Amino acid sequence: MSVLIVGSTALDSIKTPAADRPRLLGGSASYAAIAASFFAPVRLVGVVGTDFPKRYLRLYRRHGIDLTGLQIKPGKTFHWAGEYEVNMDHRRTLRTELGVFETFSPDLPPAYRKTPFVLLANIAPSLQGHVLDQMARPKFVVADTMDLWLNIALKELLALLKRIDGCVLNESEAQHLTKEDNLLQAARAIHKLGPKYVIIKKGQHGSLLSAPGGLFLAPAYLLERVVDPTGAGDSFVGGLMGYLAGARGPIEANLRRAIIHGSVVASFCCEGFGPSRSSRATRAEIEQRVKELEKRTRF
Amino acid sequence: MSVLIVGSTALDSIKTPAADRPRLLGGSASYAAIAASFFAPVRLVGVVGTDFPKRYLRLYRRHGIDLTGLQIKPGKTFHWAGEYEVNMDHRRTLRTELGVFETFSPDLPPAYRKTPFVLLANIAPSLQGHVLDQMARPKFVVADTMDLWLNIALKELLALLKRIDGCVLNESEAQHLTKEDNLLQAARAIHKLGPKYVIIKKGQHGSLLSAPGGLFLAPAYLLERVVDPTGAGDSFVGGLMGYLAGARGPIEANLRRAIIHGSVVASFCCEGFGPSRSSRATRAEIEQRVKELEKRTRF
Repeated sequence: MSVLIVGSTALDSIKTPAADRPRLLGGSASYAAIAASFFAPVRLVGVVGTDFPKRYLRLYRRHGIDLTGLQIKPGKTFHWAGEYEVNMDHRRTLRTELGVFETFSPDLPPAYRKTPFVLLANIAPSLQGHVLDQMARPKFVVADTMDLWLNIALKELLALLKRIDGCVLNESEAQHLTKEDNLLQAARAIHKLGPKYVIIKKGQHGSLLSAPGGLFLAPAYLLERVVDPTGAGDSFVGGLMGYLAGARGPIEANLRRAIIHGSVVASFCCEGFGPSRSSRATRAEIEQRVKELEKRTRF
Repeated sequence: MSVLIVGSTALDSIKTPAADRPRLLGGSASYAAIAASFFAPVRLVGVVGTDFPKRYLRLYRRHGIDLTGLQIKPGKTFHWAGEYEVNMDHRRTLRTELGVFETFSPDLPPAYRKTPFVLLANIAPSLQGHVLDQMARPKFVVADTMDLWLNIALKELLALLKRIDGCVLNESEAQHLTKEDNLLQAARAIHKLGPKYVIIKKGQHGSLLSAPGGLFLAPAYLLERVVDPTGAGDSFVGGLMGYLAGARGPIEANLRRAIIHGSVVASFCCEGFGPSRSSRATRAEIEQRVKELEKRTRF
């Protein structure tokens, strides 16, 4: 089945202690769409300016991503510039130019409205809600979010949480949203806000799924060297949703392996600047790391 | 087979946001010995003063711990007082009174010298080395350490690492010791210092074993509520060594399950002040949490 992915499509200029790379393909929807494309057909909704490099359109197409929903507007593409510290754990934003993204309205092409799997990648919760307004009873909806929306759009985020099946946030966001330090308490509090499935990301420490069938403690695929962590979280949730859309059987039976596949795609993402490494991964390489994670966790 | 445990035996006065408990049973060897006793016979080496409460000697005995090596000296028992912050992640030392521990020399009773499993719980590396000087070819030696020794006894610690099979340290200590931020690189660097088995503790994020047979990513048994984390790390390594001593077959085949059992005993430790909860755990309760961890990690 197909997965609809809505989020930001951008250009990222990234500085690390080792290098400085301008105008890479970026944005939550770009990373998520590439990650999902290994497992299922992807439909993208986003907006770019007329300056958006043709080579990135070709990259989307090489991944079989349906671009009917990608709006190309007069003006400049959303541009983010950031810099990482030595240990890659902290980054700071150097510049944000919204460009055509400032007035983005994620209006769905009619053909997209019955897509069974919907990933609301990280954008303003009001826009995420606007997508759901246009959908005809999707099978499974997951939303990703970030601390910014907890600070400036909490009301809209809380309204969105009531309308989705699963939410993905990182540890500090879960604690911030619920005012609970303990992760199990935080997950329980988030269930009360709506989502049946709560996934808390913990970076290199893996992730935690809280679901009706119990907890799942997922490992991360540890790397000897991280080149650029930008987009790892988006790749994680994109891989997860792509895997679910491509798998047979009930959602909950597939969710654990979906999370593991998301982790593995995120690991490839961290091995190159922007999506340069994840976009060159093969399904066979992905399955090899999944097997390796099985070996690393069995006891 | 038996396990010899050498370390500190102390009284701890612990403040948390919820309570204030004076003169609990404390010390790295106390926690480790109680944890190990669920799985194998334990021989303890430590020192206490004449003020050491009889009820704590009874507690050791209830766990079948051999106290031939526990020295009782005129003077006061090592006393540590500390306070935890709201989230239990940080603690500060309020008071440290070394008492009879200041001149502690871990001299082994002759009957202890052939013990096959040796846990050098957290004490000064020179004392840990002194224990090994007295041993007759033990089967498996593991040492625990702490940041203090990295700062004030690095030379002795490096000498010790060449003489042991496995070492246990936490994430920040591994990074500090090796000047490597990346955990895989840090583990590799520690192997070069001597130990064949490197175990890096990550608190509620679990632990990582680096061994000739590959990596093992072990989960922690998450709790809804942590009462007092004091001694969790000592309980972890104690449970681990007790399990190894009690299991048949080659060390590496048992090490993963040993780590899981250590994690579970550590989880009980966190549920009460001092060892009050872990000392009341049953083997059946421990095995139930091990099974639960299997369920929480399978995919």
